[in-house]
Amino acid sequence: MQQDRPLSGATDVAPYRYAAAVEYAGAAYHGWQKQTRDPVPSIQSEVESALSRIANHPVDVVCAGRTDAGVSACRQVIHFDTWVERPERAWLMGGNTHLPDDIAFLWVKPVRADFHARFSALSRRYRYLIYSSAVKPAVLTKGVTWTWKTLEIERMQQAARALVGEHDFTSYRAVGCQAKNPVRRVEHLQIYREGQLLVIDIKANAFLHHMVRNIAGVLMKIGAGEAEVDWAQQVLDARDRRQGGVTAPPFGLYFVDVGYPPEFVLPQTALGPYFLLSAD
Amino acid sequence: MQQDRPLSGATDVAPYRYAAAVEYAGAAYHGWQKQTRDPVPSIQSEVESALSRIANHPVDVVCAGRTDAGVSACRQVIHFDTWVERPERAWLMGGNTHLPDDIAFLWVKPVRADFHARFSALSRRYRYLIYSSAVKPAVLTKGVTWTWKTLEIERMQQAARALVGEHDFTSYRAVGCQAKNPVRRVEHLQIYREGQLLVIDIKANAFLHHMVRNIAGVLMKIGAGEAEVDWAQQVLDARDRRQGGVTAPPFGLYFVDVGYPPEFVLPQTALGPYFLLSAD
Repeated sequence: MQQDRPLSGATDVAPYRYAAAVEYAGAAYHGWQKQTRDPVPSIQSEVESALSRIANHPVDVVCAGRTDAGVSACRQVIHFDTWVERPERAWLMGGNTHLPDDIAFLWVKPVRADFHARFSALSRRYRYLIYSSAVKPAVLTKGVTWTWKTLEIERMQQAARALVGEHDFTSYRAVGCQAKNPVRRVEHLQIYREGQLLVIDIKANAFLHHMVRNIAGVLMKIGAGEAEVDWAQQVLDARDRRQGGVTAPPFGLYFVDVGYPPEFVLPQTALGPYFLLSAD
Repeated sequence: MQQDRPLSGATDVAPYRYAAAVEYAGAAYHGWQKQTRDPVPSIQSEVESALSRIANHPVDVVCAGRTDAGVSACRQVIHFDTWVERPERAWLMGGNTHLPDDIAFLWVKPVRADFHARFSALSRRYRYLIYSSAVKPAVLTKGVTWTWKTLEIERMQQAARALVGEHDFTSYRAVGCQAKNPVRRVEHLQIYREGQLLVIDIKANAFLHHMVRNIAGVLMKIGAGEAEVDWAQQVLDARDRRQGGVTAPPFGLYFVDVGYPPEFVLPQTALGPYFLLSAD
């Protein structure tokens, strides 16, 4: 085995930084984050393991946004540092052969040392897929959130307007959320039909823990006629998680894009999920 | 436990016949058919087990078309006979609670005694989903067939014309296919793009074993430029399986509809897969 890391070197910092986009189906994993104390299947550990085999040394990765158990991604972005310089194709194709079927690299490319997958990100975007039907879905059972209730999309669209812009989202974050500042700026919150699915498309500078699923939970309740349209606003104004609705299930949630400053010249990819028609 | 079957009866034939539509993701199963000798997970055994719990006696089901391991269905149709008369809702909702997540009844309704899921069927329809991309899919990994090759849809469309109509499909059936007659009538064979997917939509009076996957294999090879457009015709004319192409993988294959004479008045449902936009 080739050992690329210098055995004695003047620096402890691996000199080559790469960025990569990762697509994954979350159903089989306990979320993005590696659990060091009690190892369970995680996306991060699979990704690090695949890259470490290409690098021939242990690789740690940093992601743009950690996703919960059951949440999927069409375009999670990561960066990692390595002691080896390899062609992009080696990282991409080689990496993919070492990943399980439900995780894939979309691209891998060298980036400047000041690029940081999390801190350089200007925005994150999620899509939440809801299947409203009298009977449960089977084909995409772990890829959509099912409700037997009929949802009135106009009510949800109207309610969503209250959440766009910069707000204190204390009422929409998990009780255990570690973020110091509960203020986030929602750039858009669109709700539309795509075939038999109802899609909630939300973009913000960043998200609090469970923020998308808590928003989805409130909007679904309003869509089902179980709460008034202005309830989304009332919950927001309360700045109290206890006033919020239920956290919607993780299965319909897809992390679809991360925005970075143009100077990092990262590849653009279709937003997906690729089995839905619209790509933007 | 209530025992609905008469302990001594004048007849051995259960008096109530029901039809049902079943949706399933095939990835976790060894195909539709129950294996009595060497039990493995099958759709049929799950469906029979769920219905037996509602009927309170063992139920056998007959399907419109058996699907291979890994093949999914948006609308498989079955019939079964039972000693009990239950409301449609009891079969449907009760049945669904006894099914695993990746199998669901879409509807259950009483039918005439002369309805037969297989022999009454006038047509079957399949869709084959191909994801053509430089990198593998992750989110829908077991629900699409991936190729890194670029497929020219016009070549595939042109080649497909040779297969429409009534033909001897010997070259397109599995070597072990049990059907006595290799002649089938293909009513349509359309190829189109749906988002980032390429869809082969094929309807015939009936299909031979592996017929859709063998047709897909030939068309993909033509689309990739590895065979001439008229190769589909040449393979057909040869009436020899050895002249055919590779059998395309099962994962992209969806059984989407079964046609019956209108006098049986079965419910119509969306063709699906529901995560694709078009419903017809």
